[in-house]
Amino acid sequence: MPNRRGTYELYYWPSIQGRGEFIRLALEDARARYVDVAREPGGMRAMQKLLAGDLGAGTSPTPFAPPFLRHGRLVIAQTSTILAYLAPRLGLEPKGEAGRWAAQQHQLTLADWVAEAHDTHHPIGVGLYYDEQRSEAKRRSAEFIAERIPKFLGYFERILKRSPGRQKWLIGRSCSYPDLSLFQLVAGLHYAFPQAFARAVRKAPNVRDLAERVAKRPNIAAYLASPRRLPFSEDGIFRHYPELDNGRAKR
Amino acid sequence: MPNRRGTYELYYWPSIQGRGEFIRLALEDARARYVDVAREPGGMRAMQKLLAGDLGAGTSPTPFAPPFLRHGRLVIAQTSTILAYLAPRLGLEPKGEAGRWAAQQHQLTLADWVAEAHDTHHPIGVGLYYDEQRSEAKRRSAEFIAERIPKFLGYFERILKRSPGRQKWLIGRSCSYPDLSLFQLVAGLHYAFPQAFARAVRKAPNVRDLAERVAKRPNIAAYLASPRRLPFSEDGIFRHYPELDNGRAKR
Repeated sequence: MPNRRGTYELYYWPSIQGRGEFIRLALEDARARYVDVAREPGGMRAMQKLLAGDLGAGTSPTPFAPPFLRHGRLVIAQTSTILAYLAPRLGLEPKGEAGRWAAQQHQLTLADWVAEAHDTHHPIGVGLYYDEQRSEAKRRSAEFIAERIPKFLGYFERILKRSPGRQKWLIGRSCSYPDLSLFQLVAGLHYAFPQAFARAVRKAPNVRDLAERVAKRPNIAAYLASPRRLPFSEDGIFRHYPELDNGRAKR
Repeated sequence: MPNRRGTYELYYWPSIQGRGEFIRLALEDARARYVDVAREPGGMRAMQKLLAGDLGAGTSPTPFAPPFLRHGRLVIAQTSTILAYLAPRLGLEPKGEAGRWAAQQHQLTLADWVAEAHDTHHPIGVGLYYDEQRSEAKRRSAEFIAERIPKFLGYFERILKRSPGRQKWLIGRSCSYPDLSLFQLVAGLHYAFPQAFARAVRKAPNVRDLAERVAKRPNIAAYLASPRRLPFSEDGIFRHYPELDNGRAKR
């Protein structure tokens, strides 16, 4: 698969939103020219080849895992690093030095939240099936619902409350890439924990409003309505297992 | 506590290495002028005040959690973001654009490994004591030892094998901040899982050599021998619970 100059090549698992979705949302919001490589014919083989270490010496290191982005001679892995690279190119970076560091910082806090959301159904190991860690998943989900969702939601609600302007964004007066990621977290947690998250988000009206505002941005709305937006599923990060949604677990 | 111009102010829990240690190692290696604020008189109060949201509008956002760095008018949280900010100032950044992105990417992969090391003793929730999640910790540690340590070690070993030069570093021909962090992971895992990690690292001689080389860098050696280096303990990320070190768990 030749590297098309100027075009962003996103490499990620072709059948799930997963961590790749945070990149897709940024590319789609900016209407960037990109290829979702592994969803094209021969793309999975190209991705596996890059992961097998087929990069020449002196270039970017072989990624640890998808997602990764190929752009010109660069190959960049890790969701938050890819977003930091793309942000100035896509116009999704806040103005000013403090704003740029704030964006990176918020993105990593969101990444921590994403990792914890994943671990609700995989508290013991990524190499085991959900059914092999179901009782631990119940306990971890109860903790996540009782302690962690309120903590993360409360933090971002507090940041948004202090935001200037009528339309509130995480940094300054316009939408930047962590806002898109916060939308995805809200969407994912609504899917995974419909009852518990609906209760929790009532106390974070600014977060809820931000997520709704992101969903209505014209390019995002078009993307969400397109076949390019994959559905949430029980193969992704945000999984809906009804038994994890009630916030109770046996000790 | 006044903000001393030019001096880096690190805010982190005063009695543990924790995530703050990755910042301390970079500051120490560069012999930077810094204050470990919470370890000074009145410092904990200063840290709590900043965490309570006492930052003026229009500046950096209130951090989600320590560690965070204050430098001039900036306040930056999240370990990997702090390191990306410090790297060019401390001379710990690789040369060239590809190298800089590689450093950020490696740092985040190392951060993932750190988070998984933490979760071996807290697989259910950070708000619970170890004793409340001991059986889950045994299962998670067994998975970590069997699957995750070899995966992460193998990845960095492979990166180092391809490194140019006789002395191997993660990026290019000189030491950059992810090398210091990889040293800390090796030290921490030796402390937490002395038997299992000693076995695993035999298969990653380049990682082992890199960690030894970092420990001998003059400023790091002086730091490790000083009272500024806190000991590992069962309050930190890397905890030694002998029952977690044997790599076996009941299903």
